[in-house]
Amino acid sequence: MRAAPKLKAAKTPQAPAPLAEPFLPVIENADAPGRIILVCEHASNHIPSAWGDLGLTEAQRSAHIAWDPGALALSRGLSQRLDAVLIHAPVSRLVYDCNRAPDMPGAMPARSEVHDIPGNAVISAAERLARTEAVYLPWASGLHGLIAKRIAIGLRPVIVTIHSFTPIYHGKPRRVEFGVIHDAAPHLAVAILNAAHKLTGLQAELNAPYSAADDVTHTLRVQATPYGLPNAMLEIRNDLIATADAADAMADQLAAVLNMGLVEIQRQAKAS
Amino acid sequence: MRAAPKLKAAKTPQAPAPLAEPFLPVIENADAPGRIILVCEHASNHIPSAWGDLGLTEAQRSAHIAWDPGALALSRGLSQRLDAVLIHAPVSRLVYDCNRAPDMPGAMPARSEVHDIPGNAVISAAERLARTEAVYLPWASGLHGLIAKRIAIGLRPVIVTIHSFTPIYHGKPRRVEFGVIHDAAPHLAVAILNAAHKLTGLQAELNAPYSAADDVTHTLRVQATPYGLPNAMLEIRNDLIATADAADAMADQLAAVLNMGLVEIQRQAKAS
Repeated sequence: MRAAPKLKAAKTPQAPAPLAEPFLPVIENADAPGRIILVCEHASNHIPSAWGDLGLTEAQRSAHIAWDPGALALSRGLSQRLDAVLIHAPVSRLVYDCNRAPDMPGAMPARSEVHDIPGNAVISAAERLARTEAVYLPWASGLHGLIAKRIAIGLRPVIVTIHSFTPIYHGKPRRVEFGVIHDAAPHLAVAILNAAHKLTGLQAELNAPYSAADDVTHTLRVQATPYGLPNAMLEIRNDLIATADAADAMADQLAAVLNMGLVEIQRQAKAS
Repeated sequence: MRAAPKLKAAKTPQAPAPLAEPFLPVIENADAPGRIILVCEHASNHIPSAWGDLGLTEAQRSAHIAWDPGALALSRGLSQRLDAVLIHAPVSRLVYDCNRAPDMPGAMPARSEVHDIPGNAVISAAERLARTEAVYLPWASGLHGLIAKRIAIGLRPVIVTIHSFTPIYHGKPRRVEFGVIHDAAPHLAVAILNAAHKLTGLQAELNAPYSAADDVTHTLRVQATPYGLPNAMLEIRNDLIATADAADAMADQLAAVLNMGLVEIQRQAKAS
């Protein structure tokens, strides 16, 4: 079992009032008939005024530590091409990282890569609770609603989360361009990887630049795995989607890859 | 993968409006400091007027097919004795069974044990969606909120669901009196079973009268397992909790059993 972070537990979880009104997830293309639900937890670098600037420079607040640059543009491109609903988070992951449980250090990180986050250096239990209520709970309910409503009408949605990663991490360049990461069930991720090898020239790798063992598959683990839904987390190196045109070109490639991956798992399901 | 039920899928999940306002779960003893979250999915046999009487007689609507008789009284007794928060569902499981995913046949059963449920014989996709939105989604969000808020302040809650079962099923008497069922992780269930054998004279059995393989651990699978929380589903034969006094006496016994089980898993956690 994961160890809880050391912090002074409040007497009861009800005491403190939330810092701010809830920040609802944004849902686009809500009526789309496609089988995929696209999820973008790190779409925004917005830090609501209640949290000031978290003690960061403007350059830091624009960097990958605050969000996944290019991920929202790519997600929107995929949403259009795949006729897929898209849900994305409205605030920076430095306020609350929606791909982390509330007790994970990365949910409200005190340090990200080589950067200290002064506004997160000391977070009281009341403040952890307030951020959880303001960001994580509405996010989780919003995504769960999309999933459960589709299940109710006899669809079995497929959950695909869209992320980007920095080309240079802790001073070392990363060679991988496209990572496909899975939670418990690997079949969709493997089908997407095979499709990427067939259809693109991208340096595509499974469970890279990190994997479920690094606790990065929270959304998949909580929302997809318990319902037995096919799922994958896509990671695109952010220098490849740094402009609107580049993100569009990548959406062209990855829409074809995702479609081929979907066809493959539907073939497998029929054969089994 | 579980097969989806055969039904005509609506074009989009957004089309139909819910039949009724949402039926919010009831939360009691909300500020309780105890580590356990008590969950009672089948607390009520209430059928809201939108669903009439589902074509059932009054006797059928009072029977175990509509709810778990005695489970709420026992849950309240445990909530007081363990200083534990309690969440329970406000409508009959014949409208929506909160311990089932929206695509499970048992979520809105057409038949339960030997009884046909006329009002559930044919359920359109729109109606499945409406019941999911009215009952399952607020239930799931309510329970997830209790869990995530505790996790946020550094607690690791323990999820215990409280059920009762009928002494005679399909004409056959059941010998088991107290069943302890687990989802993926068995350690809490085993500790509770051992405590029941030590502290009570109950005929107590593991994964009886049914088990996770029968798809009865939906709540645990969706809400507890993904967060790595200790969990167990308790099943009490309903003839043993048929009166308020009997439920109280059972709460005395099971509160001691749960406390001993908790101490045991905390000992194991420290030793590991």
